[in-house]
Amino acid sequence: MIDPAALARVRIVLCETSHPGNIGASARAMKTMGLSRLVLVRPRLFPYADADARASGAVDVLHSATCCESLDEALTGTTFVCALSARRRDLTPPAIDVRNAARELVQHALSAEAAVVFGPERVGLSIEDVSRCHKLVRIAANPEYPSLNLAAAVQIVAYELRCAWEADEPAEPQGTDVHPAVHEEVERLVLHLEQSMLATGFLDPARPGRLIQRMRRLIARARPESEEVAILRGFLHSVVSDRKP
Amino acid sequence: MIDPAALARVRIVLCETSHPGNIGASARAMKTMGLSRLVLVRPRLFPYADADARASGAVDVLHSATCCESLDEALTGTTFVCALSARRRDLTPPAIDVRNAARELVQHALSAEAAVVFGPERVGLSIEDVSRCHKLVRIAANPEYPSLNLAAAVQIVAYELRCAWEADEPAEPQGTDVHPAVHEEVERLVLHLEQSMLATGFLDPARPGRLIQRMRRLIARARPESEEVAILRGFLHSVVSDRKP
Repeated sequence: MIDPAALARVRIVLCETSHPGNIGASARAMKTMGLSRLVLVRPRLFPYADADARASGAVDVLHSATCCESLDEALTGTTFVCALSARRRDLTPPAIDVRNAARELVQHALSAEAAVVFGPERVGLSIEDVSRCHKLVRIAANPEYPSLNLAAAVQIVAYELRCAWEADEPAEPQGTDVHPAVHEEVERLVLHLEQSMLATGFLDPARPGRLIQRMRRLIARARPESEEVAILRGFLHSVVSDRKP
Repeated sequence: MIDPAALARVRIVLCETSHPGNIGASARAMKTMGLSRLVLVRPRLFPYADADARASGAVDVLHSATCCESLDEALTGTTFVCALSARRRDLTPPAIDVRNAARELVQHALSAEAAVVFGPERVGLSIEDVSRCHKLVRIAANPEYPSLNLAAAVQIVAYELRCAWEADEPAEPQGTDVHPAVHEEVERLVLHLEQSMLATGFLDPARPGRLIQRMRRLIARARPESEEVAILRGFLHSVVSDRKP
């Protein structure tokens, strides 16, 4: 398990957001992934009812957001900063995809403060803002319509941060209530199926073809549980037992 | 580059969506990642102005959405279906994380139709709906607040689909003689099995329990081929047809 405080050291900075609903939805996107530090640079409308509505159960993240007058103020104390930008321009920091950026951010946040900066909805970050950042983050997108909603972009970044953060966690233990059928149970099922197919006349013993082989393959693919084998055999029993000879 | 048509073969199915804004935002999320086939099962309000507003530049995807009366109708023609669900319940298909699900979906969509199914905003998918799917997809999330907005979940799934599609992995060659059964064939098999279980007296109509649900889950896990479905139905026909009343 990676340091649980690491995600709390990655702040999400939204610059000059126009729509308060996007701020609320961003807070929700953050909280679903375990992020908590939201910083707003000159939001057009904040606080605002629509922000609260879209935040849903993440109003705590929203209401503890910090408001700043400048990006510099928002980045105080950080030592690694990524900027989201879809635009390709000259003189930008090196570009990196969001998955690799998330890994770098989480690694960095083990011991220091980091930030991801998002620009205004329509125009994106200014070249001056981008130049304050260490890496330019690109999200894979449809080149014909790469226009992600602001909160949707925050959601993807937060999701990749959580994936990077969870990467070292031990795998989730398997459910203990699953009992795969053992080999001999499966074999008895195949035999029971064959006998039933003979009893109903579906399988002609003179011309068996590859029918049972096919059934065996299908059952193997299904990897049945013990209980499922028992159900199927119960059904097969009912097929044969009360047949009139 | 993987087959450019593959993304078009993955349909996004939204079941009983309450808020039309979420439908519009989902259409936008899809288009930003190159997805185009949106299917709506009994949306509460559609078409609707708020859906168009939130779709932004993706009104083409929104307006070409198909409306269906049932999930079965929505899944017609598909051979691989994933369901989004945060809830842990008994008797579900095997769970898989969204990254691996996206790889499977894209691989599958190279040669066949696939779908990802999302439930209503508050309650999620019913167990009956989930049991129609082959895999349960989990998105990494904060266990204390895993409540992603619907369109945000669509955005993450669409993003992972695009990442999988853009990845330079060579496609695993599909066997040319394998013909997975389409959704409606599987449904007819489930119905036929139920009728047969009733006919033999194995299934008590007064106390059906979760028998059919269990059978549906087993069959989904087996991913039967068309010919296997035909064989099983032939056997079931033989079980019932020559029974003495």
